[in-house]
Amino acid sequence: MPVDDTAPIEVTAFEWVPDFAKGQVRDLRVRWALEEAGRSYRTRLIGNPRPPGYEREQPWNQVPVYKDGALELFECGAIALHIAETSEALLPRDPIRRARAITWLFAALNSIDGPVMAYVSASLFNADKDWSPGASEHFAQFLAARLARLGEWLGDKEWLEAEFTVGDLMMVATIRGEDILQYAPANLVDYVRRGESRPAFQRALAAQLADFIAEPA
Amino acid sequence: MPVDDTAPIEVTAFEWVPDFAKGQVRDLRVRWALEEAGRSYRTRLIGNPRPPGYEREQPWNQVPVYKDGALELFECGAIALHIAETSEALLPRDPIRRARAITWLFAALNSIDGPVMAYVSASLFNADKDWSPGASEHFAQFLAARLARLGEWLGDKEWLEAEFTVGDLMMVATIRGEDILQYAPANLVDYVRRGESRPAFQRALAAQLADFIAEPA
Repeated sequence: MPVDDTAPIEVTAFEWVPDFAKGQVRDLRVRWALEEAGRSYRTRLIGNPRPPGYEREQPWNQVPVYKDGALELFECGAIALHIAETSEALLPRDPIRRARAITWLFAALNSIDGPVMAYVSASLFNADKDWSPGASEHFAQFLAARLARLGEWLGDKEWLEAEFTVGDLMMVATIRGEDILQYAPANLVDYVRRGESRPAFQRALAAQLADFIAEPA
Repeated sequence: MPVDDTAPIEVTAFEWVPDFAKGQVRDLRVRWALEEAGRSYRTRLIGNPRPPGYEREQPWNQVPVYKDGALELFECGAIALHIAETSEALLPRDPIRRARAITWLFAALNSIDGPVMAYVSASLFNADKDWSPGASEHFAQFLAARLARLGEWLGDKEWLEAEFTVGDLMMVATIRGEDILQYAPANLVDYVRRGESRPAFQRALAAQLADFIAEPA
């Protein structure tokens, strides 16, 4: 679905980020879920300083915030689950398959994203610190061990369970950075490429990139 | 509810952990949710080496695994949500209040637990490394900033939203360690104490502690 300024669903996104963050900001995950579910949305672009009172919408002062009428949500996992609950494209109706998909959604955001962000913080965001090399090596090893286990689970399957779900969406979005994939086994790299090749992902990525302005205000 | 060896719900837990981890292992969160929901459960205690094939139950070789008939789940967030979906004690029926509670569940496990685990890894688990002091200081500052924002959100409210939900359960469980609370504002410490004083939490904690054997096998 195209971004549509008259759509009832609103998603916040940053008007500008450094090049290394383009295509990685977390509104991408929500855009992707909306695209898979066939829902159109509008974006509200924010910058620095944040709009007055934004911390009551998003307590960490980050993106995305999701609004649909009286509903207002602020964690990409909760938003993705909310969207998935309205679409069989992301969440099977069968109760057991549904619960398994949700397990993988939490796995991406707790058991994988935590180690990803620790590694990225130590290596990329603090590369100039004297503790960065040692901490980066430690967190890289921990991350590689988690990704090895994830690759063992996946084996030669196409997706983490029997079909593509919101769990795969979040997992692919969490590990798709090249900084992360350097620690992933080959089958997991292929898995990420399968996710990224979905038309809904491609539309979401193009829409995020198209929203960035050339220079910060 | 007492732990009941004939209950259909089974939760895995470790038979032994070092003293600093006692009362912190993640099966506590599932036990607490079951106690709030008034569901009895049995435990399956595991040690090192793990039971054969355990990595197909829990891809990271951790606890908890949750089984109920044909349903098998492995992330504490997904398990807590599954339990909450059957109990108004943890999840309001009103769709908007329900979605807000789920947003806080994800907030605890993604926006707070990630920084918590990065700090604990740098300080506690790697205290002997030369990079530990610098990395610990960095991750402590990041964690303190997140907890300050969480405290600002909470203000003088009793819970994160209008009533106690699975979001509060997971948030309290995530930040209740004394290593973490040293970086929390006073209202957040009081919030944790309110959570810990709930009878369901007290039963869950006592049950986890009672399951540990004196020495590892």
